Amino acid sequence: MSTSINLAVIPGDGIGQEVVAQGLKVLTAVLPQDVKLETREYDLGAQRWHRTGETLPDAELEALKHHDAILLGAIGDPSVPSGVLERGLLLKLRFAFDHFINLRPSKLFPNTATPLAGRPDIDFVVVREGTEGPYTGNGGSLRTGTPAEVATEVSVNTAYGVERVVRDAFERAASRPRKKLTLVHKNNVLVYAGHMWKNIFDKVGQEYPQVTTDYLHVDAATIFFVTQPERFDVIVTDNLFGDILTDLAAAVTGGIGLAASGNINPTGAFPSMFEPVHGSAPDIAGTGKADPTATILSVALLLRHLGYEEQAVRIEEAVSADLAERDGTFRSTDAIGDALAARVAG
Amino acid sequence: MSTSINLAVIPGDGIGQEVVAQGLKVLTAVLPQDVKLETREYDLGAQRWHRTGETLPDAELEALKHHDAILLGAIGDPSVPSGVLERGLLLKLRFAFDHFINLRPSKLFPNTATPLAGRPDIDFVVVREGTEGPYTGNGGSLRTGTPAEVATEVSVNTAYGVERVVRDAFERAASRPRKKLTLVHKNNVLVYAGHMWKNIFDKVGQEYPQVTTDYLHVDAATIFFVTQPERFDVIVTDNLFGDILTDLAAAVTGGIGLAASGNINPTGAFPSMFEPVHGSAPDIAGTGKADPTATILSVALLLRHLGYEEQAVRIEEAVSADLAERDGTFRSTDAIGDALAARVAG
Ligand SMILES: CC(C)[C@H](C(=O)O)[C@@H](O)C(=O)O
Ligand SMILES: CC(C)[C@H](C(=O)O)[C@@H](O)C(=O)O
Repeated sequence: MSTSINLAVIPGDGIGQEVVAQGLKVLTAVLPQDVKLETREYDLGAQRWHRTGETLPDAELEALKHHDAILLGAIGDPSVPSGVLERGLLLKLRFAFDHFINLRPSKLFPNTATPLAGRPDIDFVVVREGTEGPYTGNGGSLRTGTPAEVATEVSVNTAYGVERVVRDAFERAASRPRKKLTLVHKNNVLVYAGHMWKNIFDKVGQEYPQVTTDYLHVDAATIFFVTQPERFDVIVTDNLFGDILTDLAAAVTGGIGLAASGNINPTGAFPSMFEPVHGSAPDIAGTGKADPTATILSVALLLRHLGYEEQAVRIEEAVSADLAERDGTFRSTDAIGDALAARVAG
Repeated sequence: MSTSINLAVIPGDGIGQEVVAQGLKVLTAVLPQDVKLETREYDLGAQRWHRTGETLPDAELEALKHHDAILLGAIGDPSVPSGVLERGLLLKLRFAFDHFINLRPSKLFPNTATPLAGRPDIDFVVVREGTEGPYTGNGGSLRTGTPAEVATEVSVNTAYGVERVVRDAFERAASRPRKKLTLVHKNNVLVYAGHMWKNIFDKVGQEYPQVTTDYLHVDAATIFFVTQPERFDVIVTDNLFGDILTDLAAAVTGGIGLAASGNINPTGAFPSMFEPVHGSAPDIAGTGKADPTATILSVALLLRHLGYEEQAVRIEEAVSADLAERDGTFRSTDAIGDALAARVAG
């Protein structure tokens, strides 16, 4: 825990701008007086790309390295071909800064609308691998655009990459009351990657006899997400399965407006990056309808990562209390930010 | 529509035996007197593998070719290493017989327990590609079992394979009242395969101006499956995404005990294979708790494929009526089969 925070801010596209403003509002309100917060905003995303053709130039990638952390809003716009910004900016950052822990807590807060009948008690965290799997850009296409086209996507998995994320997940599971860790993969079909994941999971598990372990195929896991989500405590899984499962997890815990995430490099070699799970939602950008709570909860993860545990908890408790007292009337992006800033300032 | 059916039956493992027996019971009851039903049972699955080390010998693969269709129960047992039977038997059949349409209807029947609040009106069908994607076994591992291991999985996609399944999905959408087709992929990350799917989808779509089209990333699709499943009519997607989505679809429409599927080769070059989406459930095998409805609904798909539309509808209506009149008391596998057989015989 330092006495200053040098934060990079990438508002990005669509509602990214609006929700990041609220995240910063709450961050400012919660920080102790003597902690100096410096922010630098980076103009990256769809507008920049349209203007200059750049997604993430080397100079900016270099500059980003010198921050303590990054707060990101959302990336992506229908005016940009699918994949350009995602791969040229968002994934580029995750890979360049070796964000191998993609941390996505899922909690059903009081008084939030879950689509699930019976409101199960949901409180788990997905530890998604962030630097391997089918996200490495190892694919190609041959005879593109012809009837003889062949397109491949290669999922690359290394023992190095799998062991570090599995170990992190065991540590997290060991520190939680229920101490349960579920590996999700598809090792009956993706046998090479799947068996490697399972073998490493079993091997590392021997060092954590206090942690109960479990394995599920990804298809079966989606069933339990809706029929028995309370069975999960910590889940560890690959990059793509984690992507899919955490959107589903967000949906069952009150929606994507509440789902926070951290792209974490626990070694500290590079800054970690915190962002809501939701996208840029261009359809509601500028209307004041965006819920900034996911970004504000991402700020809590950011604070925890930088050692401000007390402040992180204060934000999480504020969100919980705020949701519990909500009466269903519409509140704008700004109003939610104000309410949470007031609560954490306390 | 022939006047005889020469059916191959692969009961397989666990509850496979029990549910297939009920499927045959209903099939026999629904068929017109003058249709001759011949069945041959194939002893394939875990027991065979333990006894002989074989999963699907060439002679049996050859013999299977000469049937009009295949009815399969379930494959897989914890005593067999994960992947051996799935790849050596189930996937081998899907690939050898070029089952490129993996058809999975999802319907919320009356009086069934969905985990979703508000019981949305769900009635869609997933057309899952069955012979490509990450299911092709194109992967490998290097330095296996060492800390320097690298394991890859290659998703192989061809314009040939994508176009035929996309075309089939457009045909199905065009023949349904709502005429809506959603492509699900992840083309912002899996850009090579994803763009090829999207381009072919757009191109074929021009021939079907009456069909409304839509694209969703797979992560977003899982959200809509639980928040707005009524928005879907026909979905077309790749092998792996289809695997994941159809388990989730089964879960929201009353559970895996009701989800039917067909592995279809529409060209007729090889027999198509019909099976419940659920697995072998060894934990309840032999207890009479297995619900044979998914298998019985798979028999309906089988009949439709062979031209017995009237009989297919009769089974589907019987299931619907049976579920509607269900009073919540336990009924054994056998009792459900008897009830449905009685209804369709009518
Ligand atoms: C935008 C996209 C590249 C990204 C991903 O697939 O990781 C998003 O869905 C997420 O989950 O953060
Ligand atoms: C058993 C397994 C290989 C199979 C698949 O992944 O296709 C199953 O999950 C299914 O959906 O039919």
